[in-house]
Amino acid sequence: MNTDAIRQITHISSVALHEDEAAVVIIDQTKLPNETAYLTLRTAEEMYDAIYYLRVRGAPAIGICAAYSIYCLAKQIMEHDYAPFLTAFQKHKAYLNASRPTAVNLSWALNRMEAVVTANPDKSTMEIIGILGREAKSIHEEDIAMCRAISEYGLTLVKDGDGILTHCNAGPLATSRYGTALGPIFLGMEQGVRFKVYADETRPLLQGARLTSYELVKAGVDVTLICDNMASIVMKNGWIQACFVGCDRIAANGDAANKIGTSGVAILAKHYGIPFYVMGPTSTFDVTCKTGDDIEIELRPPEEIREMHYREPMALPEVKCYNPAFDVTDHSLITGIVTEKGICYPPYSDSIAALFR
Amino acid sequence: MNTDAIRQITHISSVALHEDEAAVVIIDQTKLPNETAYLTLRTAEEMYDAIYYLRVRGAPAIGICAAYSIYCLAKQIMEHDYAPFLTAFQKHKAYLNASRPTAVNLSWALNRMEAVVTANPDKSTMEIIGILGREAKSIHEEDIAMCRAISEYGLTLVKDGDGILTHCNAGPLATSRYGTALGPIFLGMEQGVRFKVYADETRPLLQGARLTSYELVKAGVDVTLICDNMASIVMKNGWIQACFVGCDRIAANGDAANKIGTSGVAILAKHYGIPFYVMGPTSTFDVTCKTGDDIEIELRPPEEIREMHYREPMALPEVKCYNPAFDVTDHSLITGIVTEKGICYPPYSDSIAALFR
Repeated sequence: MNTDAIRQITHISSVALHEDEAAVVIIDQTKLPNETAYLTLRTAEEMYDAIYYLRVRGAPAIGICAAYSIYCLAKQIMEHDYAPFLTAFQKHKAYLNASRPTAVNLSWALNRMEAVVTANPDKSTMEIIGILGREAKSIHEEDIAMCRAISEYGLTLVKDGDGILTHCNAGPLATSRYGTALGPIFLGMEQGVRFKVYADETRPLLQGARLTSYELVKAGVDVTLICDNMASIVMKNGWIQACFVGCDRIAANGDAANKIGTSGVAILAKHYGIPFYVMGPTSTFDVTCKTGDDIEIELRPPEEIREMHYREPMALPEVKCYNPAFDVTDHSLITGIVTEKGICYPPYSDSIAALFR
Repeated sequence: MNTDAIRQITHISSVALHEDEAAVVIIDQTKLPNETAYLTLRTAEEMYDAIYYLRVRGAPAIGICAAYSIYCLAKQIMEHDYAPFLTAFQKHKAYLNASRPTAVNLSWALNRMEAVVTANPDKSTMEIIGILGREAKSIHEEDIAMCRAISEYGLTLVKDGDGILTHCNAGPLATSRYGTALGPIFLGMEQGVRFKVYADETRPLLQGARLTSYELVKAGVDVTLICDNMASIVMKNGWIQACFVGCDRIAANGDAANKIGTSGVAILAKHYGIPFYVMGPTSTFDVTCKTGDDIEIELRPPEEIREMHYREPMALPEVKCYNPAFDVTDHSLITGIVTEKGICYPPYSDSIAALFR
């Protein structure tokens, strides 16, 4: 077993504070898996764009990035008095907060950072900036601990040899260290527990192909990449014992917003009798949303669907794929079969036989 | 209403016999929507490749192409005696039949052509070739009539203003004239009935983006392109009143093989209480298959998933897209929510509240 490979992946830092503590350094996730490029974000616009264009992505990673970003921006505020400092801070906060609406971790992290400022009106701006730095680092460190804890809990839900289906990417790149949905898989690998993972490619931006299958194959996990519409057939084949997904915001009643397509996976899992687990830190809960209807869903540009941005291969060449061209729809799911001789209704054994009499 | 535009689309011939009656002419569907290129198929290898590489696709169109192909190949057989002619004919038939395994129309058309030969052992090969030509043209003409009849039946299932979700492409390009699943939509347009169509892009080969949205937008139909994993959210939004899909092979019990992902659409439709209709000519039924388990599912190369073949835009620029980045999974579909503080189980209102106490 290649422990080094697992370490290498689970110790990836997709977001870090620059050593000069004036910028945020991220892995540009839009360039993976073909290129590992780092970006240094110094201006508010660079930070906003990094989040908007998914150069940094994954709800927890966005939170960490936002915390470090607002810390760096606070240092750029040329005000020594508290009131104008607070005003400038809140302007930066509102700007960063508008970059993506759905993941609650963004506003959660920014609110936590703002609370540091509002709780210390009597301190100097220099002192406040010092506390902001410690708070941002805490948010990052806490995320590492939370991912580890989530991984341990998640690992109790599956057993050696199980097939696990995941959607989008909730691994180290999306978080810190282990990740959330992929955490139990990496932790299992460290402990000698093996899974067969099926990764939905996750259109339109292909996080499953570009990031999940990349992280898993690099760590030596048995991963098979599928198109999103193949989830049904792999479940029907009996290859999936559990679904593990991350989340961007969870309402008080348990309704969970996550990458587009997650609800479809859940419906398929229910149909096939497969458990479906959502994994995320408590910072992902937003109890001000009573149900999922209160969660704003981000709408993105049509070009992401109409044009393929990735002209290079979107998965590593060693990534296994399962590529069935067809699947079979069980007759119990079909309302009617329309032929040139009329419409057949259930029971089909009778109506089809009648068609050929 | 643009009747000309509808005519233009519903009179597309994606497959035709060359006027010299020695070759098959097809629209190269892999080049659409950016280029309308015609291919002339004269050799058995060109015919096989055209089917294998989906240059001609759609179960009925494959059947028509196979019928014309074997007719042209029969003319190339340099045998005047019946027995060696039959042997050569059957060799061609077996070769073409191996190009794709799932769609029954391929073998159905080839079997029908072979029956012409085996039914006429006393005729000269010249005479047999003449009958083969008429049989191939009959198969084509019957398909036009079948599509028209299917369209009329299908139109009775929906009403003006309905939202229809379709998967893959079962329009004129896949068949003759109206198509099967898209037939009611084109026929409705001619009669002044309007639908809002949602087209799944249909990974990996994007027939929904490249062909369905192309055909519909050219005919002036209100079509919105979505990624496959967005079918759940558009159903949940209440935008879909019926699902219309084509089929490649239907077993005696009604289990229907169709493009990968169709079964997932059917499960989602059932979950949301939306009728799900399969449309196809009776030539698509294979009553030798008792259930769907008897249907062979074609497995295709991993490169179709790992690499994007379409470096040009895969939908017309005027195609509307709906591109939500997230969706909400109803709590009733979630087995457990794994947090760093432990695993929440239903009822979530209680277990989540407990988490924050």
